[in-house]
Amino acid sequence: MIKIDFEKMGGLVPAIIQDYQTNEVLMVAFLDEKALNLTLETGKTWFFSRSRNKYWMKGEQSGNTQEVREVFTDCDADALVIKVKQNGGAACHTGNRSCFYVHWENGAWVEHSEPLFDPDEVYKK
Amino acid sequence: MIKIDFEKMGGLVPAIIQDYQTNEVLMVAFLDEKALNLTLETGKTWFFSRSRNKYWMKGEQSGNTQEVREVFTDCDADALVIKVKQNGGAACHTGNRSCFYVHWENGAWVEHSEPLFDPDEVYKK
Repeated sequence: MIKIDFEKMGGLVPAIIQDYQTNEVLMVAFLDEKALNLTLETGKTWFFSRSRNKYWMKGEQSGNTQEVREVFTDCDADALVIKVKQNGGAACHTGNRSCFYVHWENGAWVEHSEPLFDPDEVYKK
Repeated sequence: MIKIDFEKMGGLVPAIIQDYQTNEVLMVAFLDEKALNLTLETGKTWFFSRSRNKYWMKGEQSGNTQEVREVFTDCDADALVIKVKQNGGAACHTGNRSCFYVHWENGAWVEHSEPLFDPDEVYKK
C-alpha cells in the first residue's frame, strides 16, 4: 500500500497546484499529513505555512478557494500534484492568476504582473 | 533585481518540470544555485540529488535528457517552473512518461503505471 513519505522533508511534502483544465501551474505550497487529510476530506486545498507555523485554507481570506478535482503523487510518494478549479480567477496573493509570473529572459528575471485584483483591497485588515 | 531565495530551504529550491507543449507535470526535483546556473547555461536540466549528495544531468544515464524551453520563478522567488522538451518520451526512472502516475481514488493511492521503457534495461550497470 502506498503511503506519502512525509519524513524526507521533516514532515512536509511539496504540492503543485495545477489548473484542472489547462494544466497551468498556479502555485506551489507545502502540506503535512494533517493538511493533506483536510484537503482530501473537505475538497478544498489546505496547506501548512512554514513562516506562520499554522494551517490555512487557500482562499480563507480572499475568497479565492480552490476546489480539488484530482490528486496525484509521484514514483517516490514524496510530492503531490493537486488539480483544482480556481475560484475568483487568481491563485496568487499578488492578484496574479499564477504565482509563476516571473520569467527568465536574456540573463535576468522579468516580472509579467497582470493582477486580476488589488491585494490591498482583498487582504485589508 | 529579483534573486532566487535559496536560503529558505537550506540552499535548495523545488523545481516543477513541465512539458512545454501540454503543460503535463513530468517530475519535481531540487536545484541549488550551481544546478540552476548549469541548467541556464547548458539548456539541459541539472539537479542536486539530496540522497546521493551529487549533481546530475537528467538523462545522463538513460539518454532521456530535457531541453529547457522556458524558466519561471514565483512571487516569492523560492520555486521554479522549467518547461522542457522531454527526449526519449519518459521522464520517470520507472519508465513512465511522468513521475505522477499514482492517483487518489476512493480513499487509496492507485498506480497507473504504463512504462515506455524497461528500467532494468536502461539503468543496467
